[in-house]
Amino acid sequence: MSAYGGIDLGGTKIQAVVIDEDCNVLGSARRATPTSGGPPEVLGELAAAMRDASAAVELEATELAGVGVGTPGRVEEGSVREARNLPDWEATFPLGRELSKELGVSVKVGNDVHVATEAEFRLGAGRLYQSLLGVFWGTGVGGAMILDGRLWRGRGGAGEIGHMVVEIDGARCTCGRKGCMEAYAGRASMERHAQKLVEKGRRTKLFELMHERGRTRLTSGVWARALEHHDKLAEQIIDRAVVALAAGIASAQNLIDVDGVILGGGLGVRLGHPYAKRISEAMAPHLFADAHPHVHVAALGDLGGAIGAALLVRGDG
Amino acid sequence: MSAYGGIDLGGTKIQAVVIDEDCNVLGSARRATPTSGGPPEVLGELAAAMRDASAAVELEATELAGVGVGTPGRVEEGSVREARNLPDWEATFPLGRELSKELGVSVKVGNDVHVATEAEFRLGAGRLYQSLLGVFWGTGVGGAMILDGRLWRGRGGAGEIGHMVVEIDGARCTCGRKGCMEAYAGRASMERHAQKLVEKGRRTKLFELMHERGRTRLTSGVWARALEHHDKLAEQIIDRAVVALAAGIASAQNLIDVDGVILGGGLGVRLGHPYAKRISEAMAPHLFADAHPHVHVAALGDLGGAIGAALLVRGDG
Repeated sequence: MSAYGGIDLGGTKIQAVVIDEDCNVLGSARRATPTSGGPPEVLGELAAAMRDASAAVELEATELAGVGVGTPGRVEEGSVREARNLPDWEATFPLGRELSKELGVSVKVGNDVHVATEAEFRLGAGRLYQSLLGVFWGTGVGGAMILDGRLWRGRGGAGEIGHMVVEIDGARCTCGRKGCMEAYAGRASMERHAQKLVEKGRRTKLFELMHERGRTRLTSGVWARALEHHDKLAEQIIDRAVVALAAGIASAQNLIDVDGVILGGGLGVRLGHPYAKRISEAMAPHLFADAHPHVHVAALGDLGGAIGAALLVRGDG
Repeated sequence: MSAYGGIDLGGTKIQAVVIDEDCNVLGSARRATPTSGGPPEVLGELAAAMRDASAAVELEATELAGVGVGTPGRVEEGSVREARNLPDWEATFPLGRELSKELGVSVKVGNDVHVATEAEFRLGAGRLYQSLLGVFWGTGVGGAMILDGRLWRGRGGAGEIGHMVVEIDGARCTCGRKGCMEAYAGRASMERHAQKLVEKGRRTKLFELMHERGRTRLTSGVWARALEHHDKLAEQIIDRAVVALAAGIASAQNLIDVDGVILGGGLGVRLGHPYAKRISEAMAPHLFADAHPHVHVAALGDLGGAIGAALLVRGDG
């Protein structure tokens, strides 16, 4: 039986899986994404993560029928550019070719949000739908649409739900624009907002929890822990994010009217059902059609991106 | 050679056309939409408008190869309900069947925004595109998308661009929701806003121009005339509409990334290119992809809806 490798290249971590022909996860491995050294350093860790996942099921990477990679940035024929959450990755890097050389196996590269949405559509929370909107709530807020069973790419840039305007002349986004949904709901923006409030004298356990966990950023785990502690400032910033997510997702739904919404991403998966429900309730006053779409948490959880990447090489069969 | 009838049933006027097989407009006629009397009264005027347009090209309506109608509200198998801009038209009325009896010819009924967008896609400003967003700036702000050459309907309710949220907790919309784009840019909302400002003591020629023209509402013509007079209040309200339209259309584009945008509707067609350009410029700071879509004025102008309705019976040939 053939085994397929999949790697989700995230801003914080690299997640690798090995799946079989029935898409069962046979093994997995995780590594931290390098914070310096550029594409060559990242390449090394991708290969190491894939070898670790293979070793976990007693395979050599060369025995895999292929390896898929889901990556941020712009992907064209196996090359990746403008991957702004990765270290020094503005220029085009031939990731597919180089990883293929490194691992001795064929490699396909896709957009991280696209492959994760495809995985949820084919195997996860969206498998009963013909159309859906995937919303990935993490460092930024990414999106992708399946319409009539197929990923809608537009001219190549579709799905930027995080940069839908929810407040004209609103908060400054990490992208430089104003009033984007991500300016309120992206983890990077939330962290910046928390820092500003602390500088103004507000108290919070967020940064203490970050240090305790040996982190340098407010990860999804740190936010989740702060909410468990009923940290007021964390609650306030998360509430603001929920309001923005709800307005943005409801706007998208009013436009495209899909069967359902899948909530993934670091924060989406970590905060899970109670927050999917809160977002859904906050969407209701904005929705135009009487039949409101259900908001599901990504059923493949943290592994969805890596499984979706493996589907790039496994195919539709 | 066959001739086809098309009727655009609007909140203010009924526009009928007769087209030939090459989609040339042979004749047309226009009537005011009844403001009372419900569906039977409207039915009578639809039939009269279609007979007028036919008579203009020396045809009996019964000689038409078919008649298409584009209507607001929800359309299902020739019946129309919840047509809120029409008088007393909440319940289902079998418009197709009744108009067919009245005219003695087969009738097909479609959604007004859908047929107008199809017409621009097939014959108008969108004919070089494979995907586009139609935005109809009138009493409300309607929308429709052609994706990969086909109208995207979603679950039946797609295209409600007027009810995308551009301001969380913003202005109250005519739909009852808050912060919708239409709450700033729909002509009904704009008129209400003008009235409020007048009640607060602001001066404007808008209502004087309305009376001069024998109107009871601030029509697109009244707005256009007020802008020619450099009426400050009219300029201010139109500027606010442009800002909201730009945010909403840019948000939609960030999500669906189509080839181009077509601006139609009473105000869109009346204000024309200079305003399409202003909207386009105001969209720029919100657009995520580097390649900005062109914003065209609907090339079929005022007749697009009626021509699109005729296409319902002419088919794709």
